[in-house]
Amino acid sequence: MADRVTITVDGGIADVRFNRADKRNALDQAQFAAIAEAGEALKHMPGVRVVVVSGEGTSFCAGLDFSIFGQMAGGSIDGDDAAVRNGNPGRLTDGGLTHLGQQVCWVWQELPMPVIAAMHGHALGGGLQIALGADIRIAHPDTQLSVRELHWGITPDMTGTFVLTRLVRPDIARELTFTARVFDAREGHALGLVTRLSETPYEAAIDLAREIADRNPDGVRGAKALLNRMFVEGVAEQFAEERRVIRSLIGTPNQVEAIAANLERRPPQFTD
Amino acid sequence: MADRVTITVDGGIADVRFNRADKRNALDQAQFAAIAEAGEALKHMPGVRVVVVSGEGTSFCAGLDFSIFGQMAGGSIDGDDAAVRNGNPGRLTDGGLTHLGQQVCWVWQELPMPVIAAMHGHALGGGLQIALGADIRIAHPDTQLSVRELHWGITPDMTGTFVLTRLVRPDIARELTFTARVFDAREGHALGLVTRLSETPYEAAIDLAREIADRNPDGVRGAKALLNRMFVEGVAEQFAEERRVIRSLIGTPNQVEAIAANLERRPPQFTD
Amino acid sequence: MADRVTITVDGGIADVRFNRADKRNALDQAQFAAIAEAGEALKHMPGVRVVVVSGEGTSFCAGLDFSIFGQMAGGSIDGDDAAVRNGNPGRLTDGGLTHLGQQVCWVWQELPMPVIAAMHGHALGGGLQIALGADIRIAHPDTQLSVRELHWGITPDMTGTFVLTRLVRPDIARELTFTARVFDAREGHALGLVTRLSETPYEAAIDLAREIADRNPDGVRGAKALLNRMFVEGVAEQFAEERRVIRSLIGTPNQVEAIAANLERRPPQFTD
Repeated sequence: MADRVTITVDGGIADVRFNRADKRNALDQAQFAAIAEAGEALKHMPGVRVVVVSGEGTSFCAGLDFSIFGQMAGGSIDGDDAAVRNGNPGRLTDGGLTHLGQQVCWVWQELPMPVIAAMHGHALGGGLQIALGADIRIAHPDTQLSVRELHWGITPDMTGTFVLTRLVRPDIARELTFTARVFDAREGHALGLVTRLSETPYEAAIDLAREIADRNPDGVRGAKALLNRMFVEGVAEQFAEERRVIRSLIGTPNQVEAIAANLERRPPQFTD
Repeated sequence: MADRVTITVDGGIADVRFNRADKRNALDQAQFAAIAEAGEALKHMPGVRVVVVSGEGTSFCAGLDFSIFGQMAGGSIDGDDAAVRNGNPGRLTDGGLTHLGQQVCWVWQELPMPVIAAMHGHALGGGLQIALGADIRIAHPDTQLSVRELHWGITPDMTGTFVLTRLVRPDIARELTFTARVFDAREGHALGLVTRLSETPYEAAIDLAREIADRNPDGVRGAKALLNRMFVEGVAEQFAEERRVIRSLIGTPNQVEAIAANLERRPPQFTD
Repeated sequence: MADRVTITVDGGIADVRFNRADKRNALDQAQFAAIAEAGEALKHMPGVRVVVVSGEGTSFCAGLDFSIFGQMAGGSIDGDDAAVRNGNPGRLTDGGLTHLGQQVCWVWQELPMPVIAAMHGHALGGGLQIALGADIRIAHPDTQLSVRELHWGITPDMTGTFVLTRLVRPDIARELTFTARVFDAREGHALGLVTRLSETPYEAAIDLAREIADRNPDGVRGAKALLNRMFVEGVAEQFAEERRVIRSLIGTPNQVEAIAANLERRPPQFTD
């Protein structure tokens, strides 16, 4: 874990960094595990009043590692894997709310203190879903965002369908999901996926974290708990449905065709 | 039905057109029936991946046909008609969720594939409510929109109070409903009622439909189902309440006065 | 009550004014009581079709009276007071939904007719929460707004956590609450806390009220009831939780330190 995600605490602020810069912090099995463990570790660290999450290198997180798509196309992951990215398929994390893919996004809501995501470079697919799990998002205007899943023939299953419906209008959520298009953080800000734009998102996130760390920490946690109460309504059922739908898609002919066509750079041929 | 609403399917896209151009596609009994039947027919058409809904002639849909207001003012429709626009008053459509007036709006959510409304000219009252039932709305900037019902002394009862609370803030929903004012699609876009503006909304809708039709159709349907799960919470109770409230209004002295004053072009005199 | 809040009715419009101009309409015990009583009185006044709420003098409402913060810091109000601002601690108002601090905000939703808040000067803390309880908000662009509670080490407990989650995105609600920063109504409008900006908010509110008063009053009330149905989901539990959280904060060392540091104009020293 020390390799893949780093945590340093200073002045009440936990500085959490995805540390797989050579792969733009893409999510393979080890990266999923490291992020979830970092989140758990923060639950038990004394003196943490605010958390800032960012990515080392050129990107926040580019999404799923290509090796996973290769496994999907090659048939070594199929619809019977309850949780694709979970070493122990079908096993839910403690509490039964999430599987591992969902937990790397949801753990930021489980933390009692505010979590700020500082985004730059890319936040695509699973990378965007992780950022949407934070309380507040500050992004460089050029950050490339996408609800990218349908490009690979799958649906968002890392809490994305839940948080999207909380952050943007129903029609925007549908348009972004159906088209899987890539857009920059300026548009993301206008649509509701980015809280603030900044040329220096990491520095802006640390500044905001300092401001919050100067408030009564009991009050800040109380406020997060109060605001979360209404946010989470219906979450368990929606997460379960995300898992059910993706199980019904992965490894099916149309989904395998989506990946194969992407990898072979040709138009896909789907059957209705 | 072939007369009032037309459907042509090409390349996975169902092109649905309201075809009562001489009346700006206003909603009389036959038009309500034709739209609901078109929606039902689409549920069983093979190979439809996306639906585009638009209006022939100068408008998307100008709202209720004047003949219905005349019946209200003349007392031939009263508060005991459970569903004003329903030939069989009080009868609910299959599933018990809607009456006919609601079904012409809600059927687009029942369809498993995405539905895009292409709006131009007018989308007033019931016409706006139909457009709000689509997944995505593309409108010409000059399109005239209105939550027009209170101009006629009634409340939105065609799913409008439900979808408005999903699409715009509570204060905006109230302001638009209480004033019944007419506004253009530019303002509608800023407020949240229009997804995209286009000088050529029909062509833009077809282009977007093509883009979506090129995605894994199983994944697209899965995504719509996931995003809809949270959207529909509380819908049955709200639709029932829409029907209850309008039953309590239609044919009462103040509502008849609202229509009479409009038709006679004089200020209304209401009693408290 | 005649002193602290005035009501005049003309042409179906009830003109309600907070009348403690020398204190910028700050909320002490008597002001809380007077506002709640005014709201109750309006429920029984015949011929009121629309309500306009504004403040005499330089401000809408500057928030809690300083005397209350002094009591908190001095220990004469502590965590066992179920409802800080309630002369009869722990007692809920009729219906059991609110305590007095919440009732001065929520009574505007209980009224069957539309309520428009006309804001100028300051709407801070409890003052903002009162405005957010209205159906529609018209503000002078320079009005100073703030979810100010964490500046005093406490959380919003006057229905604010409920209405904030209905009016703005989750990340915006968190950012405003955690930072407790002051912002003007221009930003408030962009964020969703202000319906309309006007250089003359009171006159604009009266004009809008006249427009609404010219509609079928039965239909207007029906529309408010329909739009409120979905708005209120989960409200009782959230209000109870607001009361529980603030009980756990008031009079504790960190909260007393927040107030003391503010009053002594020095940085606070909190313990984790």
